[in-house]
Amino acid sequence: MTGNSQVRRLLVVNPNTSKAMTHVITASVNNTLQAYGGIVEATTVHVDHGVESVEGSFDEVVSAYWTLEKVVPLLPSYDGVLVACFSNHVAVKALREYTSKPVMHIMEAAILQSLPLGAHFSIITDSGHWCPLLEEGVQSVLGSLERCASVRSAEMTALDTVTLSQDQVVEKLASAGRQAIDQDGAEVLILGCAGLAHTRERMVTLLGVPIIDAVAAGVNTMIGPMITQLTTSPVGMYTPLPPRPEEVNVPNPGIMTAYQADPKNQ
Amino acid sequence: MTGNSQVRRLLVVNPNTSKAMTHVITASVNNTLQAYGGIVEATTVHVDHGVESVEGSFDEVVSAYWTLEKVVPLLPSYDGVLVACFSNHVAVKALREYTSKPVMHIMEAAILQSLPLGAHFSIITDSGHWCPLLEEGVQSVLGSLERCASVRSAEMTALDTVTLSQDQVVEKLASAGRQAIDQDGAEVLILGCAGLAHTRERMVTLLGVPIIDAVAAGVNTMIGPMITQLTTSPVGMYTPLPPRPEEVNVPNPGIMTAYQADPKNQ
Amino acid sequence: MTGNSQVRRLLVVNPNTSKAMTHVITASVNNTLQAYGGIVEATTVHVDHGVESVEGSFDEVVSAYWTLEKVVPLLPSYDGVLVACFSNHVAVKALREYTSKPVMHIMEAAILQSLPLGAHFSIITDSGHWCPLLEEGVQSVLGSLERCASVRSAEMTALDTVTLSQDQVVEKLASAGRQAIDQDGAEVLILGCAGLAHTRERMVTLLGVPIIDAVAAGVNTMIGPMITQLTTSPVGMYTPLPPRPEEVNVPNPGIMTAYQADPKNQ
Amino acid sequence: MTGNSQVRRLLVVNPNTSKAMTHVITASVNNTLQAYGGIVEATTVHVDHGVESVEGSFDEVVSAYWTLEKVVPLLPSYDGVLVACFSNHVAVKALREYTSKPVMHIMEAAILQSLPLGAHFSIITDSGHWCPLLEEGVQSVLGSLERCASVRSAEMTALDTVTLSQDQVVEKLASAGRQAIDQDGAEVLILGCAGLAHTRERMVTLLGVPIIDAVAAGVNTMIGPMITQLTTSPVGMYTPLPPRPEEVNVPNPGIMTAYQADPKNQ
Amino acid sequence: MTGNSQVRRLLVVNPNTSKAMTHVITASVNNTLQAYGGIVEATTVHVDHGVESVEGSFDEVVSAYWTLEKVVPLLPSYDGVLVACFSNHVAVKALREYTSKPVMHIMEAAILQSLPLGAHFSIITDSGHWCPLLEEGVQSVLGSLERCASVRSAEMTALDTVTLSQDQVVEKLASAGRQAIDQDGAEVLILGCAGLAHTRERMVTLLGVPIIDAVAAGVNTMIGPMITQLTTSPVGMYTPLPPRPEEVNVPNPGIMTAYQADPKNQ
Amino acid sequence: MTGNSQVRRLLVVNPNTSKAMTHVITASVNNTLQAYGGIVEATTVHVDHGVESVEGSFDEVVSAYWTLEKVVPLLPSYDGVLVACFSNHVAVKALREYTSKPVMHIMEAAILQSLPLGAHFSIITDSGHWCPLLEEGVQSVLGSLERCASVRSAEMTALDTVTLSQDQVVEKLASAGRQAIDQDGAEVLILGCAGLAHTRERMVTLLGVPIIDAVAAGVNTMIGPMITQLTTSPVGMYTPLPPRPEEVNVPNPGIMTAYQADPKNQ
Repeated sequence: MTGNSQVRRLLVVNPNTSKAMTHVITASVNNTLQAYGGIVEATTVHVDHGVESVEGSFDEVVSAYWTLEKVVPLLPSYDGVLVACFSNHVAVKALREYTSKPVMHIMEAAILQSLPLGAHFSIITDSGHWCPLLEEGVQSVLGSLERCASVRSAEMTALDTVTLSQDQVVEKLASAGRQAIDQDGAEVLILGCAGLAHTRERMVTLLGVPIIDAVAAGVNTMIGPMITQLTTSPVGMYTPLPPRPEEVNVPNPGIMTAYQADPKNQ
Repeated sequence: MTGNSQVRRLLVVNPNTSKAMTHVITASVNNTLQAYGGIVEATTVHVDHGVESVEGSFDEVVSAYWTLEKVVPLLPSYDGVLVACFSNHVAVKALREYTSKPVMHIMEAAILQSLPLGAHFSIITDSGHWCPLLEEGVQSVLGSLERCASVRSAEMTALDTVTLSQDQVVEKLASAGRQAIDQDGAEVLILGCAGLAHTRERMVTLLGVPIIDAVAAGVNTMIGPMITQLTTSPVGMYTPLPPRPEEVNVPNPGIMTAYQADPKNQ
Repeated sequence: MTGNSQVRRLLVVNPNTSKAMTHVITASVNNTLQAYGGIVEATTVHVDHGVESVEGSFDEVVSAYWTLEKVVPLLPSYDGVLVACFSNHVAVKALREYTSKPVMHIMEAAILQSLPLGAHFSIITDSGHWCPLLEEGVQSVLGSLERCASVRSAEMTALDTVTLSQDQVVEKLASAGRQAIDQDGAEVLILGCAGLAHTRERMVTLLGVPIIDAVAAGVNTMIGPMITQLTTSPVGMYTPLPPRPEEVNVPNPGIMTAYQADPKNQ
Repeated sequence: MTGNSQVRRLLVVNPNTSKAMTHVITASVNNTLQAYGGIVEATTVHVDHGVESVEGSFDEVVSAYWTLEKVVPLLPSYDGVLVACFSNHVAVKALREYTSKPVMHIMEAAILQSLPLGAHFSIITDSGHWCPLLEEGVQSVLGSLERCASVRSAEMTALDTVTLSQDQVVEKLASAGRQAIDQDGAEVLILGCAGLAHTRERMVTLLGVPIIDAVAAGVNTMIGPMITQLTTSPVGMYTPLPPRPEEVNVPNPGIMTAYQADPKNQ
Repeated sequence: MTGNSQVRRLLVVNPNTSKAMTHVITASVNNTLQAYGGIVEATTVHVDHGVESVEGSFDEVVSAYWTLEKVVPLLPSYDGVLVACFSNHVAVKALREYTSKPVMHIMEAAILQSLPLGAHFSIITDSGHWCPLLEEGVQSVLGSLERCASVRSAEMTALDTVTLSQDQVVEKLASAGRQAIDQDGAEVLILGCAGLAHTRERMVTLLGVPIIDAVAAGVNTMIGPMITQLTTSPVGMYTPLPPRPEEVNVPNPGIMTAYQADPKNQ
Repeated sequence: MTGNSQVRRLLVVNPNTSKAMTHVITASVNNTLQAYGGIVEATTVHVDHGVESVEGSFDEVVSAYWTLEKVVPLLPSYDGVLVACFSNHVAVKALREYTSKPVMHIMEAAILQSLPLGAHFSIITDSGHWCPLLEEGVQSVLGSLERCASVRSAEMTALDTVTLSQDQVVEKLASAGRQAIDQDGAEVLILGCAGLAHTRERMVTLLGVPIIDAVAAGVNTMIGPMITQLTTSPVGMYTPLPPRPEEVNVPNPGIMTAYQADPKNQ
């Protein structure tokens, strides 16, 4: 449905209900796309239901469910999907089964962009709850933690990122980043949250190492596969499911209807 | 709420809507509990909505959502939860955040029970789609694949397990198991599906190595933590989420209501 | 020889000659068994010769030799064996060749019980000599060190555990445990010695994370295999040795006689 | 020196002296760039001296030396460098010390592009000599071999790729690729040679899985870093060397002169 | 006690009671020492009690006990000890605690000598029972199995090595070796038994890859540490045990007496 | 060309142009050879062109090129080659393709000699730039970093090693070594530079653990393979290249001439 000379269309989905976060993501997406001269257009949406912020695995299950609900009907109009949550978000795996179009989350993109820049990267996340979850995510993306110097928490709550001043947020992030560089051997830092793009410049100045904004990385990394029309493999991990007999008892029929009718053929 | 002399109550949840599967699971649970002399009682339930069979990651997201919906209101009446789906089912991670009572899936239990029996185990699953998913599950449970000789597919569809004769099912499982032993160095085999308990005896006879039924393993492995009242750690991976302000836009309020009101205090 | 309705008999062996340690182990075993309603009976014995305390690899060889001497004649009367020394005690491997009944050491049991409770566990051992030995043990049990946050020494000598007050012992253990949690990311702690069960409650109170007593873990973990009559695999790592011609020059004929006459058939 | 609205200039270097190979690379580069609407321009060059084809580690040393000689004087005119040899080419590491502009080899780019498409990739190379060398390259790029199903040889000599018919070449590649899929669990294949782009379409048709052409992957992967002006980290692995006193005894002064005069400041 | 100009004295211990095996070992040791021009002298002894052949872990415990008994009194007269059993023989660990003089087993020596010769080595052992045991040994020696292509069994019993003709033994070894090279990617082979030195030349001729005789490797590898007087580290894994109070109940007092009286000071 | 009774001839090559470093290396080589009673003779040379000190990957490429130029014509007169630069020097890989005679670098030798002495070794290098490079080298030599406690920098520049007093150098090395022992669990230390042999004795006295001088380790480790005439494997990683047609455009014909004329047959 898309040809070599066509503009590619990227769907960016915020898997939370927060409109404020959606605005931040949209700004970072648009800023990154400016340099691409119009070869890619992006639309940012958020889920209609679920949680305002994914704070852990419980939230991720809820978020993933409503992400499928949101994304499945939109898929025919897009060439690829970027899930703009910094976690190994399980909706991505699910969508790769559903469609052969490229699907990625911003954590994977950020890791892939960091690898050529230094021997070891660290992820700076907000709270300690995320450290083991993101370590597991790195293991899933790269197969091991060898290239990851550390996942460090800036010891903020989700509330802090809203109520603290920008200076205070940068100070906390930079303090964790400095420890990652000095004690863990990090050569590159990844900002482990979708809403921290605005801190990137100041972090670079303060710490003197490359800092990856995951949303920008997501846009950069999605363009190649969309341009080259790389498709997800139909064998193994992401094998499309066979059409199944009509199911009952599903009170939110949106997903299921599309899913049964047209697997991998939207 | 439970004392040393009390009977422990185990909630077994089939995260699919299939009543037939629930019956099979119940049979295996009850059979295993017989030898425990009434120190543990189990109730098996299935989700009210979702998919009839979890065939991949898309289904797992849907299944996990409805598993939370089902389990959360029941939690106050039980001492532990066993999720009876042979996958690294994401509902387990979510529930460990929600409650400090022991929660496990049968894949983890089967792996833990196999380790002392031989140097390397193999998992025999039905279709090739599951091989990389279960390998990732082993990596999550043990931290690496070193002790896993292989995950082998018996090359059956979900339909096959219903339409084929028992002899044919055993033959396919045994053929994959034989390859795991001879080519991959497996010393122990795990039946990678909740509904294969009835084949266990014949597999032992045919192959001459220990065969793990994951549902029985799940019951065996849950009893110790329930008896000893081991609790999930409140720090790191399973940190309980803080109470959050009332959320809107949630059409299935069951989970969310309980979740907001009483984290870790049911 | 045992049926579904029979009481299972567990042999717990202290591989040291210390009667004091045997008493501590017996107390922990009995305390754990109370909740099992009589489905399992345990007998605790210690070796007749060898070392009073296993302080390293030299001692372990001596201890293992006398453990075989002690256990082999007792095997026909028991359904399983628990070696109550917190190390990757080599007698376990040897016994798994000798009998197909379940055999475990308490280190393996403690690790298996810790895995579902958090992403990473740490072991608190007494002296630094044990750190690399126990790390090697974790690698043997799980195939890698990925799930182990650290093995930390409380910097006590064997003598200290006897001569120091309980308060001092708890203080040293808690100090090492606190470092494991704060610096290494431990979410669960394992007490790396058979004689520390009495400190568990206070450690839980002080540190706020799950604390595993390895002897209790050993009892919990042995019950499932004994109930379900899981047997050690006869292929690969624990292949039973063939009967061998009469040997001479063995001044301690107890083991050898039984061994030659009746491999795997006691 | 480059701004957001400027065209980026990519230097593609064939580290061999073969003009025929340079033509093949140029064709693949240009073909890939077509869809990018002129935001990037590329120039392909080859080394002036060295070997006609890198057949192993001896050749790689010679090739790397002359690649530095060629690339260093050209660096000021370009925004990034792609080394178009399918190996973990040591010139890349050297250049990352010399300049902070993005530098990559096509092997790294191909691996990064394959990761989101399936759980495991395989590399199809020409001769068996390359298998362990490329495995070491994967370990260097990802930190482990977990995500790599295999490196398989199509059992061709360098001569074969020239003298065999296209049909024969495709047949050999497809045969190795089929084994990678069926026996090793590959879900995505990477063509492990710069000169195989023309076989890609037919391989996709024959094997039904995504096939990565490494030169196209290289172009796709370089664009993001050039657009976003990501720089190589100045700490750790790629620390720029300090200016050094004039050296003597260097008969090929080109490299050394530039190197001494202006490290990281071109 | 030894100076730079002195002849070094190596104690080679066969940890089995078999005199035939001791003769084979002695021949290989002497053959290797010929080229060293008398700078090292070796004495080969066997244990006085124990097993005629170490066929698994049970035997290893027995063998290790009697090895300590044999070696401890001899230690003052030697500069180093080589345990000539192809396994990760636990006596070595024990002896490294007891003395700071270099101690090695021939499996470790063979692995160390194979590493520079090719990217991956395979071990050819006699029976399948040894495969997982030797894999665990490789993991202990190198920290991982990455450099080990495979451990392959030649499918012989211990009896076979005696009753089969040399031609038949070589044929079985070469067949397993051929599979290791062709299917597992082995570039170097290690003969996984102390008594196979005589087959080495013919294996080289048949297979065309380097073949390591572990006894020769042991001699070669021990000479450097003895010459340079490298000592085992006194911290961590091999920390010498403190003197302990007189013990009773030890019917074989040889070891214990020496052990208590003079740790690390022989 | 060499027989059992002949003196072996070792070529030691300093891959830098520094004559001062060559003198230091020669002293350490000769000192080590003294105890070998004349069975091995060594000649130390340095490259004719290149860099005075290998300070990173750029320098290593240049150094490797001129090392090949230097070593190839000398090969027929020697039985083995030791590259005396403490890095995973790429010239070694290249030379192993060129000749089947044993070739090693001193980093590999030092690691191999450290393994039997303790569970974990650390490398003390001069500057932080080398830490990730040497970690990658350890991964290449052993296949993983499991046995490596750390690579620590003594925070010296190359200039410092010349301008600082011996006391100051030892102090910096000992400070890094102390941290490796106390914080990283190192039991053995490796001096990560060819020119630090003279500090070894004092480091042993200060730190109380075995200290490995890499040049001495190189000599010790090369002798066994030269004596036993072990050859590099002709399959896989070090497959010799086939003779190739005459090449043109090579301004430094020394290497290429020899290379084309006589691969693996010097």
